[in-house]
Amino acid sequence: MIDRYMRAEMAGIWSDERRFQLMLELETAFLEFLAREKKIPQAEIRALRAVAGKPLAARVKEKEATSGHEIVALLQVLSAELKGKAPSIDRYLHYGLTSSDVMDTVLALQLKEASDLLLKGWKSTAAQISRLAVEHETTWMVGRTHGVHAEPLTFGVKLAGWHAEAMRCIDRVAAARETIAFGKLSGAVGTFSQLSPALEAAVLRKFGLKPEPVATQVIPRDRHADYFHALVLSATAIERFALEIRHLQRTEVLEAEEPFTEGQKGSSAMPHKRNPILCENLCGLARLVRAYEAAVVENVPLWHERDISHSSVERVVMPDATILLDFMLHRFSRVLEGLQVYPERMKHNLDRSLGLVFSQRILLRLIDKGLGRLKAYELVQRNAMKTWTSQEPFMNVLLKDPEVVSTLPAKELRSCFDLNGYRKSARELLRRGGVN
Amino acid sequence: MIDRYMRAEMAGIWSDERRFQLMLELETAFLEFLAREKKIPQAEIRALRAVAGKPLAARVKEKEATSGHEIVALLQVLSAELKGKAPSIDRYLHYGLTSSDVMDTVLALQLKEASDLLLKGWKSTAAQISRLAVEHETTWMVGRTHGVHAEPLTFGVKLAGWHAEAMRCIDRVAAARETIAFGKLSGAVGTFSQLSPALEAAVLRKFGLKPEPVATQVIPRDRHADYFHALVLSATAIERFALEIRHLQRTEVLEAEEPFTEGQKGSSAMPHKRNPILCENLCGLARLVRAYEAAVVENVPLWHERDISHSSVERVVMPDATILLDFMLHRFSRVLEGLQVYPERMKHNLDRSLGLVFSQRILLRLIDKGLGRLKAYELVQRNAMKTWTSQEPFMNVLLKDPEVVSTLPAKELRSCFDLNGYRKSARELLRRGGVN
Amino acid sequence: MIDRYMRAEMAGIWSDERRFQLMLELETAFLEFLAREKKIPQAEIRALRAVAGKPLAARVKEKEATSGHEIVALLQVLSAELKGKAPSIDRYLHYGLTSSDVMDTVLALQLKEASDLLLKGWKSTAAQISRLAVEHETTWMVGRTHGVHAEPLTFGVKLAGWHAEAMRCIDRVAAARETIAFGKLSGAVGTFSQLSPALEAAVLRKFGLKPEPVATQVIPRDRHADYFHALVLSATAIERFALEIRHLQRTEVLEAEEPFTEGQKGSSAMPHKRNPILCENLCGLARLVRAYEAAVVENVPLWHERDISHSSVERVVMPDATILLDFMLHRFSRVLEGLQVYPERMKHNLDRSLGLVFSQRILLRLIDKGLGRLKAYELVQRNAMKTWTSQEPFMNVLLKDPEVVSTLPAKELRSCFDLNGYRKSARELLRRGGVN
Amino acid sequence: MIDRYMRAEMAGIWSDERRFQLMLELETAFLEFLAREKKIPQAEIRALRAVAGKPLAARVKEKEATSGHEIVALLQVLSAELKGKAPSIDRYLHYGLTSSDVMDTVLALQLKEASDLLLKGWKSTAAQISRLAVEHETTWMVGRTHGVHAEPLTFGVKLAGWHAEAMRCIDRVAAARETIAFGKLSGAVGTFSQLSPALEAAVLRKFGLKPEPVATQVIPRDRHADYFHALVLSATAIERFALEIRHLQRTEVLEAEEPFTEGQKGSSAMPHKRNPILCENLCGLARLVRAYEAAVVENVPLWHERDISHSSVERVVMPDATILLDFMLHRFSRVLEGLQVYPERMKHNLDRSLGLVFSQRILLRLIDKGLGRLKAYELVQRNAMKTWTSQEPFMNVLLKDPEVVSTLPAKELRSCFDLNGYRKSARELLRRGGVN
Repeated sequence: MIDRYMRAEMAGIWSDERRFQLMLELETAFLEFLAREKKIPQAEIRALRAVAGKPLAARVKEKEATSGHEIVALLQVLSAELKGKAPSIDRYLHYGLTSSDVMDTVLALQLKEASDLLLKGWKSTAAQISRLAVEHETTWMVGRTHGVHAEPLTFGVKLAGWHAEAMRCIDRVAAARETIAFGKLSGAVGTFSQLSPALEAAVLRKFGLKPEPVATQVIPRDRHADYFHALVLSATAIERFALEIRHLQRTEVLEAEEPFTEGQKGSSAMPHKRNPILCENLCGLARLVRAYEAAVVENVPLWHERDISHSSVERVVMPDATILLDFMLHRFSRVLEGLQVYPERMKHNLDRSLGLVFSQRILLRLIDKGLGRLKAYELVQRNAMKTWTSQEPFMNVLLKDPEVVSTLPAKELRSCFDLNGYRKSARELLRRGGVN
Repeated sequence: MIDRYMRAEMAGIWSDERRFQLMLELETAFLEFLAREKKIPQAEIRALRAVAGKPLAARVKEKEATSGHEIVALLQVLSAELKGKAPSIDRYLHYGLTSSDVMDTVLALQLKEASDLLLKGWKSTAAQISRLAVEHETTWMVGRTHGVHAEPLTFGVKLAGWHAEAMRCIDRVAAARETIAFGKLSGAVGTFSQLSPALEAAVLRKFGLKPEPVATQVIPRDRHADYFHALVLSATAIERFALEIRHLQRTEVLEAEEPFTEGQKGSSAMPHKRNPILCENLCGLARLVRAYEAAVVENVPLWHERDISHSSVERVVMPDATILLDFMLHRFSRVLEGLQVYPERMKHNLDRSLGLVFSQRILLRLIDKGLGRLKAYELVQRNAMKTWTSQEPFMNVLLKDPEVVSTLPAKELRSCFDLNGYRKSARELLRRGGVN
Repeated sequence: MIDRYMRAEMAGIWSDERRFQLMLELETAFLEFLAREKKIPQAEIRALRAVAGKPLAARVKEKEATSGHEIVALLQVLSAELKGKAPSIDRYLHYGLTSSDVMDTVLALQLKEASDLLLKGWKSTAAQISRLAVEHETTWMVGRTHGVHAEPLTFGVKLAGWHAEAMRCIDRVAAARETIAFGKLSGAVGTFSQLSPALEAAVLRKFGLKPEPVATQVIPRDRHADYFHALVLSATAIERFALEIRHLQRTEVLEAEEPFTEGQKGSSAMPHKRNPILCENLCGLARLVRAYEAAVVENVPLWHERDISHSSVERVVMPDATILLDFMLHRFSRVLEGLQVYPERMKHNLDRSLGLVFSQRILLRLIDKGLGRLKAYELVQRNAMKTWTSQEPFMNVLLKDPEVVSTLPAKELRSCFDLNGYRKSARELLRRGGVN
Repeated sequence: MIDRYMRAEMAGIWSDERRFQLMLELETAFLEFLAREKKIPQAEIRALRAVAGKPLAARVKEKEATSGHEIVALLQVLSAELKGKAPSIDRYLHYGLTSSDVMDTVLALQLKEASDLLLKGWKSTAAQISRLAVEHETTWMVGRTHGVHAEPLTFGVKLAGWHAEAMRCIDRVAAARETIAFGKLSGAVGTFSQLSPALEAAVLRKFGLKPEPVATQVIPRDRHADYFHALVLSATAIERFALEIRHLQRTEVLEAEEPFTEGQKGSSAMPHKRNPILCENLCGLARLVRAYEAAVVENVPLWHERDISHSSVERVVMPDATILLDFMLHRFSRVLEGLQVYPERMKHNLDRSLGLVFSQRILLRLIDKGLGRLKAYELVQRNAMKTWTSQEPFMNVLLKDPEVVSTLPAKELRSCFDLNGYRKSARELLRRGGVN
């Protein structure tokens, strides 16, 4: 991923160095357990343990240039490092393992770490949503369907809906973390031909992983596709929220604006512009994360006990997608932190429909008064059209319609135009959305 | 979906008639609860209930041609049906509801029904896999990585891996069923402006649904995207299994064949051909199901309290994908039922590598005897290459190499070429794969 | 595809009956050329030719239920039809051909027909765009970037951009038509083992097709993927246009509305609503067409001389995508035909930015007068901010700034706020967009 | 893109430095033309021209950290560079342009350069295919459909099919180069409000670009989606070829192997393995390139005169996809260069079907002799089944069937099993595939 969309902490998880250190940890843990059986001297184990932390990546890459095989290269580097100090380890290192045992188990660890970071990002995003929802529990605005004014709601209710989706995403990432927390130390084609299930279980337990019940040479890729979908739905949730802010920031709407920092230039040509570029950027990045998924799902049907076509996809997409999502969560959290909300403008826009947003209320009150549905509908629509064309407030128009007022007394009619009636459900919806 | 890939039971769930009947059921249940509050006479409720089962689709379609609105059309048909018999219902039918309340709740019911059918299909598929796995627990064959002979495994172990994936898919579809089992009766923009949460909960409970915590005008589409992913991974699992059968049925491999019915023509030109066309078909259908997903995920970020762009996608893709997956599960189950397995051919192919598949065993035994890893590796590779070029069995070649036999006595060396050593782990792997 | 999104003419191209008739035509033409060589009596050819037009689909389907092979079933039906009347034809029908020769060539014919219909649809859509562009050549509105007011343009210029894209789509569909116009009569694995290139060329020429230079058993699927991309970009173009209309129809913007027919219901709950549901529907359908593409591209890498995994994808997606696009073009054309444009509202919205949309002009005039860019930029931004907060027209604010007027005399400053300066380029852009 | 899949030349096109240098070139050329009108002294132009080649990226990035705007940052760096030396340029630099004028025009230049490199890669790949096709014009092998033996062909014919597809890809990339070779210097919202079409045309001509007929603020993104599809079909073509090699390298088939370099390790566990890892890698990379496309097509429907959601997608995907495809072409070319082809093995596998691959010939000869198609088919199938079960050569089985030999004399029957009959069409197919 390009620097522009990368944060250091997530990038660190995917660095070559981190990967090789995890591989070393795994090989070391494996050998510690094997040592009991193969009588490897403890001094040798200590020598191997001492390698941890020494920079490995550059040396492995150098060796890999010749062998074309990453794990073989790592083993060569470790052998060189232990030269003369650990003859048993030199024999037993990677004993009975296949490369995928190490690579897939380490990938699981990286994906687990990545999900921890993503959970952190989601939680801080959810907290921002929650804060805003509470703040705007009774900030009235118009609800829009099809981009057209519908009925009133509060900005807090809108945000409660986001919060509920954020919570679902948190659940998804947490579930993905469980799905991916499977390692494999069952050797070539996964048959434990030279290894034991007990050894596998013991080593993996140290890393918080469970053994893959039945692997081929690799861990089955439906796990990775499942994991990935949590990333996709997370990115898409942010896209939904960012899209809403873009809409709210339209010049004609202007009910909210993403933060605009001092010194920032909106346009090289038009100095007055404040564009929702962060949110637009988030929508674009969501497209990317979503697009990657096709390749990840295509990785599932490998040939027989595996081919290696999935590897290139994963080397690129697993870092790219987690890095992007991490960046998105962080950026969106900042957007929320500095979000400018304009309640007067929300009220202003709500009033622009001249009361038409209360039409359903009128309709139902007329029905309550005994009108048939079609009749009531016709009465409301007739007056709504009048408001629409004359731009006279809906309430006034209705008050002038004898058929209406003969059914619905003026006082009751007026009370239909009061927002307070929605207040109780706003409270309830915030609670239902997990906002406290 | 075209008839060719459609089974009646799943198609029925998605028929217009079924949808309108479910809508009627929902409107009826809603009205029953509302009746308490609005004092609708029980006789009227009974009149409405009596409509259930009468054919609706044709009449609704006719009305829709004018109004361009499905729910309005349905209400018109119901009004006509109750003409003169139920004046209160005529007023209170659909009272305070928005179309999406009905449409989305009914869609949830259809998707739940579809998942029940898919679970049935998966279970019978899993049972077939399990049966075969037990039957072939010790049917030896070569494990292949990269399409190249690797180490031996049993066909049962391969199938245990399928079974484990099938179980994961069953879990996914079951979880998807829970995810989608949410209805909504909260009215326009989801604010309960004319409805109560209590009423919503009561009605939905009758249908086994939970209330969507915070809806917009519609149920949030991340649920549908989540549901869909279970379909995608299910289709992809079948693709992986079908792909394996295609590989096994290659002329040069020919270790298994999908069933070939009497009267079936393999090729209009080449009468001897038996082609794995069912499995190829399944791979193609999986592509379709996977492709649909992009559109479903794009449905998530609707505008504000909703736009209706998701509707056309769902009208097409929800039936198409569930119908295809249902067909796939059924077809694949039939393939397994009639699968022809050729154990002698498996053994023959295994033997074609002249014992090279045991090379790792030799390597590790040499290490156990005290050789360094690199030395042992070199010894094995040297002899493997000799076998490769001379086509002399690996065991014989090794026995002639003094460096080998001086380390690994002939008897021990010979025992490395015995398949029985793998037997225990085959048992264990079947157990781990949930095969009993 | 479901009826709702299907027009009869395109559906007809994809009917079973049409396919079998085309197959019959092809087999007949093939036999006519073969007759010269094989001395088949003319009377028999006439008997075969007489079958054309008789309903075939039902009978073929019935036979296929047994043989599981469509072409074999068709040949059986034809044999039955000619029973006793054409012994030579019974022998030579399909002589040396493989099923794919017939199926792929017929598919090419269907796709060619489909593209003709799509071209028709595009041309009528382009004509509607052109008409509107001419009508609104000088209908001023605000140009929006990031959803935020930028600089003025005319609605005609916006439409000229659509027209240019429509022309590109027409070129693409026309090119796709050429790409797909390749047939194949080279037999199993495409080697002319029993057929001659001359015969292939002669038969295909009758159908306006060229021979595939080197086929496998099938026509290479990169052609179909290429063809499909023209559908995808066509659907996406309509999506772009429909999206614009949705934006223009937002309550706060309301510069245009899609047609709203008498009797149509906007909402079952809110009688005043006019929602851009046709355009939203078009956006959803575009998602579908785009999604299908992944499966079509995956069809390209078939195994060896072909497998049949592409067939199921194509049976579904080729009809579905062309039917949807045909429907989209027709629907969008109707939207344009009845599009309601509100020029006063466009002017009103343009004026809402209080002249800030002319800021760049001021900036450049100040530079022309000798100011450095940064200085000029600072002057403009300072006053823009003042307008932004005070809501006083930008011109007035600038006229009060001595630094500005000392550089740019009031009269020149005022002339910057005149729209007529843009008129010439509007003319030019319509010309460039192919609008006459 | 990660280093592993990146070649320096293509990476260079996408470096920050290269981009800023192109931007500088464009701004300089623009100013040279503007100079005539605005009377900018030639000495200043020379001063600007002298900046070319000086490293810019680091300084621009530094400025961008504050302004958050790349083009503004570049202009600041250039201003600083010209400090005191070019007062007119300081005023007129970027005069009337909008950032997208520069960014989109430069992107077009980069994509054009990228396509030149890709064309070079494709041509060298096509040359390798051609060389192999000529070499193997008469190398017989079995043609396989559904992975099952069908009829014979030569490896040269197979390669001729690849060559034809390679030529189509070259045409596609060349066409994409034309499609993308459009620049834009029409200012904000593309209306030439401060610029002239003549100036645009003159500047763009210098860079080999045409003016976009009607732009919004940006060049319409259907061009980029069109361009991208050429990358997708190119990657997919390589996938098809690589997939074939993977199949041919299967242990049981082993008719070809990708090159295996000295020192390379096939497996850390199984020293004898030679895995088609390069070709598997190519298949994986093709998945990536294909997946990216969805995001690129989603970029087309931007809001109004543009939003900036496309930018993040393109910053990532345009480099990633061209870099990957460049890598793929280079890697695949190397695979072909060192491809090991085993003609004896091809012959051996061909012979394994015991002559059944000639069944269609027999069928047609029996028909020529006067048998009805069904009768002939039945005769062939009957004997084919006998060969299939008894493993006795098809010719011998047929010779023993009196019904066959009474129709088709033994000598004629024997001649059906001669491969030479296919030789002429092999020649012809190589010619048709553009192989000389």
